[in-house]
Amino acid sequence: MSHTVEILSVGTELLLGNIANLDAQILSQGLSELGLNVYWHTVVGDNPQRAREAVALAKQRADIIITTGGLGPTCDDLTKNVLAEAFGKKLVFDEPSAQRIRGYFTRMGRPMTENNLQQAMLPEGCAILENDWGTAPGCAFEAEGCHVIMLPGPPSECRPMFHHRAKPYLLALSEGVIASHTIKMFGIGESAMEDQLRAQMNAMTNPTLAPYAKEGECELRVTAKAPTDGEAQALLRPTVEQVKALFGPKVYGVDVPSLEYVVLEGLKEKGLTLGTAESITGGLIAKRLTDVPGASAAFQGGVVSYTNEVKAQLLQVPQTLLDQFGAVSREVAAAMAQGARKALGCDIALASTGVAGPDRDGRGNEVGTAFVAIAAGDQTYVRPLRLGPRPMRERIRTQVASHAFDLARRYLAGLPFEDGNP
Amino acid sequence: MSHTVEILSVGTELLLGNIANLDAQILSQGLSELGLNVYWHTVVGDNPQRAREAVALAKQRADIIITTGGLGPTCDDLTKNVLAEAFGKKLVFDEPSAQRIRGYFTRMGRPMTENNLQQAMLPEGCAILENDWGTAPGCAFEAEGCHVIMLPGPPSECRPMFHHRAKPYLLALSEGVIASHTIKMFGIGESAMEDQLRAQMNAMTNPTLAPYAKEGECELRVTAKAPTDGEAQALLRPTVEQVKALFGPKVYGVDVPSLEYVVLEGLKEKGLTLGTAESITGGLIAKRLTDVPGASAAFQGGVVSYTNEVKAQLLQVPQTLLDQFGAVSREVAAAMAQGARKALGCDIALASTGVAGPDRDGRGNEVGTAFVAIAAGDQTYVRPLRLGPRPMRERIRTQVASHAFDLARRYLAGLPFEDGNP
Repeated sequence: MSHTVEILSVGTELLLGNIANLDAQILSQGLSELGLNVYWHTVVGDNPQRAREAVALAKQRADIIITTGGLGPTCDDLTKNVLAEAFGKKLVFDEPSAQRIRGYFTRMGRPMTENNLQQAMLPEGCAILENDWGTAPGCAFEAEGCHVIMLPGPPSECRPMFHHRAKPYLLALSEGVIASHTIKMFGIGESAMEDQLRAQMNAMTNPTLAPYAKEGECELRVTAKAPTDGEAQALLRPTVEQVKALFGPKVYGVDVPSLEYVVLEGLKEKGLTLGTAESITGGLIAKRLTDVPGASAAFQGGVVSYTNEVKAQLLQVPQTLLDQFGAVSREVAAAMAQGARKALGCDIALASTGVAGPDRDGRGNEVGTAFVAIAAGDQTYVRPLRLGPRPMRERIRTQVASHAFDLARRYLAGLPFEDGNP
Repeated sequence: MSHTVEILSVGTELLLGNIANLDAQILSQGLSELGLNVYWHTVVGDNPQRAREAVALAKQRADIIITTGGLGPTCDDLTKNVLAEAFGKKLVFDEPSAQRIRGYFTRMGRPMTENNLQQAMLPEGCAILENDWGTAPGCAFEAEGCHVIMLPGPPSECRPMFHHRAKPYLLALSEGVIASHTIKMFGIGESAMEDQLRAQMNAMTNPTLAPYAKEGECELRVTAKAPTDGEAQALLRPTVEQVKALFGPKVYGVDVPSLEYVVLEGLKEKGLTLGTAESITGGLIAKRLTDVPGASAAFQGGVVSYTNEVKAQLLQVPQTLLDQFGAVSREVAAAMAQGARKALGCDIALASTGVAGPDRDGRGNEVGTAFVAIAAGDQTYVRPLRLGPRPMRERIRTQVASHAFDLARRYLAGLPFEDGNP
């Protein structure tokens, strides 16, 4: 029997737009890896009547309901009350949970307010999902042919609670195997990718191809169903190879988390070190590198040179270049990368300069004009960028950083810095 | 008449967890500012049957339906087809939209694939919402007592399409005025804040108080309804003052976007410059500062010193301190801040050092141990941090950066670096 899942998130802060529904994303990723089909996300506020209606609907159309949020003291434990009522269960006080809550505050060195103990009221007969990352325990039960799992709302709790508590419970429910690989590309638009693949995508049923785009990157998920993982992998292999061949150097990895991860792995493999010199990206390149655990094995550090003075003093960019070409130029990008190599004592340096907006720079360079550079050995290469046409600061910065990583991963893989026009 | 809104997002990538539903957040924020009540977020995949069911339900319970996604060529324009069918409308080819789509590709310098022209098929009689940020136009119509607005899926298109296209359409529908202020705090937990406010919160109806927490910060939204903005503001003023008095220096601003924004405003007001020296945060402090447009007016630059060599060479941290106390120490944090002031030639410098994990450092410092420092004039102050108990890399880094900003905004406002224990 195949299962259908609804994720029901409870929280007025979601409906007010104070936060994005990251929980639904976290759970959806994890559930699809388990081969469970998520068909609906629903969000309601801290409103008992609408929460009841949402639960009634979810009971009809799904056989696994996973809730997030509405467990803490600020919402009077709305979710637990509504779900218990919907399935005819009482809430009972769980002393071990109360002790864990008290222990949490002790470890945090913070006084516990009494309202926190409400969180130890749990549906009778449920499996308690201990929360080592916050105060509200989760719980799971089966009733009326439906599996119910309740998880806390803060993503920093929901994520580990799903992986360490809910997943073991769910693993027993999934059957057969769904395996997938994600092929990641940089430097191609979604509709261009899709156009090249359209004939194959429509014809294929197992494996299937699912394309998607995010902020200048494209991904293609190849998914196969089979009785065993071995058989699923055998179905996947030729398709993955075919896609890799089709898109060539634009493919930067399969099942890898990010461009920056690929760069760091390439550096570690070759025993090389990396440094950065950032103007337009203002620390984002370094930040993305150090988001990756273990980055210190290859990343030495960087300079954020937001003024010409810092470019000249810390990166030894010649004042003549700054005067003649301006900070946003091919020449200064190259000098920043070369200067960073020396200042940081690293094998490879990446540099960025450009105009992130909202306004064009003093020399009339349009918003979205940027240069990324790589210096390695006696080689320096600069890629000019025009990001637009309606540029947004955050998007431009993300793209510029990604282009810098693209130069590094191409250098490390021995690929040309630019592909010919397709 | 008061309106109720449902946001219906269409996209299998949401149900697979490939992306978070940022569109729903963007719209919810904007709608609540317009005084429109969002009661439901619903997400379905690229599946016509479930999309039809979701639309049928939304028609029953909401009188404004805003859809996101499902407009592009990769999903066969599912959303437009389903909504047009649900409200008995035909799709007709709109030549001006087709021209805009062709023009978009020309401006981007990319070849247009034919499938893109599907996007010019629009419901008869609709108001066309021109998309200057991507290819798929949006549209709006009223039928059967229901307002329908369709917006493209990518957040970089959905956001400006909402603000510049949908909002003018919706402004005509909202009535009276809902005004709100958001009081932002750093250094207090959600349940501690809520405990101090509980009596007031339950007693108040207009204005209302809504607390929420995110990654170590707390916010309190005060909302009032009145016939005019002046009357709503008069209702809000005493409550905002009361909350500010209650939480004292923990309040870092009202209606401000972030701690880093407050820091930059304070710097500009005083004509001071800022620099950074980052180890554990690896560029995040600089990145967050330069996320703010106009940061260059006060932010000079920074050094990401991920190794001891870079700390010693670029920041002049004495080798004796590194040897005696290790990189994760009060002494090195102070030396980094002082060194950054000199190297970058800035008035104030912030520094961070610590262990982000996943493992403790070579000297046995636990994950989550960190120090942030500020150097300004002849003053240097170090705040030691223990972030835990179950630490996560991203959360720790975010918190450390926020603590650095907290030091800076307290310095600029003439507040003590630490409050007494409450």
